[in-house]
Amino acid sequence: MTGEFFLQTKSRTDFVEITGQVQDFLTDTGATDGFKGSGALVVFTPHTTAAVTINENADPSVVRDMAHTLDRMVPWADPAYAHSEGNSAAHLKSSLVGCSEMVLFSDGRLELGRWQGIFLCEFDGPRTRQVKVRIIGSGG
Amino acid sequence: MTGEFFLQTKSRTDFVEITGQVQDFLTDTGATDGFKGSGALVVFTPHTTAAVTINENADPSVVRDMAHTLDRMVPWADPAYAHSEGNSAAHLKSSLVGCSEMVLFSDGRLELGRWQGIFLCEFDGPRTRQVKVRIIGSGG
Amino acid sequence: MTGEFFLQTKSRTDFVEITGQVQDFLTDTGATDGFKGSGALVVFTPHTTAAVTINENADPSVVRDMAHTLDRMVPWADPAYAHSEGNSAAHLKSSLVGCSEMVLFSDGRLELGRWQGIFLCEFDGPRTRQVKVRIIGSGG
Repeated sequence: MTGEFFLQTKSRTDFVEITGQVQDFLTDTGATDGFKGSGALVVFTPHTTAAVTINENADPSVVRDMAHTLDRMVPWADPAYAHSEGNSAAHLKSSLVGCSEMVLFSDGRLELGRWQGIFLCEFDGPRTRQVKVRIIGSGG
Repeated sequence: MTGEFFLQTKSRTDFVEITGQVQDFLTDTGATDGFKGSGALVVFTPHTTAAVTINENADPSVVRDMAHTLDRMVPWADPAYAHSEGNSAAHLKSSLVGCSEMVLFSDGRLELGRWQGIFLCEFDGPRTRQVKVRIIGSGG
Repeated sequence: MTGEFFLQTKSRTDFVEITGQVQDFLTDTGATDGFKGSGALVVFTPHTTAAVTINENADPSVVRDMAHTLDRMVPWADPAYAHSEGNSAAHLKSSLVGCSEMVLFSDGRLELGRWQGIFLCEFDGPRTRQVKVRIIGSGG
C-alpha cells in the first residue's frame, strides 16, 4: 500500500505535475493486491525545500503565476537571513504550501476536481526529489 | 463513509463556516452504519480557487482580517500574471491555505478546539462550491 | 491509538520541535498494543493561533529565518484589523501553515526525510499548547 518515485526538477522554482504517477500507483496497487473500494491516500515529499500541492493543471501559466507571486512574497535574499545555506526562502515556501496532500479515491480512480492536478513544488532546485504515496483508510 | 454537500458563496473572498455540515455528516453516518469509535476524517474541496481551513469561529472579524491580509499579500492584479482568466491570485491562495483539512473525532463528535471551526474559503466567488467529507482510519 | 501532550512556548513566535514526543507516542503504542506495520498518523493542534509544520531541524537558524519572513509578510499591527484581541496576524499564520500534518511511519519509526523535523509553531505566545497525535490507516 506504499509507493515511491523520484523525479528531476529543472530550475530553482519548478512545479512538476505528478498526477499520472499517483494514479499509476493506485492502479498498480489495485491490480497487484486486488485492492478495491474507496479511501484516501497521502502524497508526501521528504524534503524541507520542496512541497506538494493540488492546483490547476490545464493552463501551465497558473503555476507560473503562483511561483512568481510566491517569489515576490518570500524574497530569496534578505540581509536578516541567518541560515548559512542561503535558502531560507525555500524552507518557508515549503511550510506555507506543505509537504503533503490528502487525495480521495474511489473505484481505483483519484477523486480530483475537473481542474485539479497534483504537483511537486520545487523551491531550491534543480534537484532529484522523492515522492512517497501511501494508501490509508480504504474501506468497502 | 463519504458525504458531500454544496454551498453558495457570496463574494469574491468569503469564509463560510461548515462545521455544522461536517458534524451532521458524522452524526448521520453513526446513525445509519452503527459507526462508532474514534478516527479522523478528511474535508476536501475539489476546486482550484477555493480552500478549506480551520480557524476561529467565535468572532467573525477574525476571518475578515485574515481575508484582508491575504488580499494584501497576494494582489489580485499584477502585470506579470500570464493566466488569461485573471484569477491567479485565487489559485495561489488556494495552495497556501490548502484544499483539505484533517479533523479528528471520537464518540461521534468532532474533536475541535474550543475556538476552532471549519471553513470553506472562497477566493474567486461568488460561486457554488462542493465539499467532500470522508471518514478514514476509524478504530475501536 | 491516540496520544496528546502539552508544551510551553517561550515567546510570541516560537517553533518548538516535537519530533521526539511524536516518535515516543508511536513507540509506546507499539509496546502497549502490540501495534505493528506501516501507516500514517495525524499531528493536530487544537488552537487557532498556532500551527504544526515539518521543516529542517538541523540548523535552528532555518526556523528563525522562517519566523522572520512570516512576520514581515503578515504584520502584527494593521489599522484595518477589526478583531479586538489584536492577534489577527497569528490567526492568518495558523491557517497559512496549517493546524495539522500527516506523517508516515513503518516498523515503529517515523518516515521523515533526513532533514525533516516536526514543529509546533507558536504565533501568539508565550502560552501552553496542546498537541494531539492519532494513528490512522495502519496496515500490515
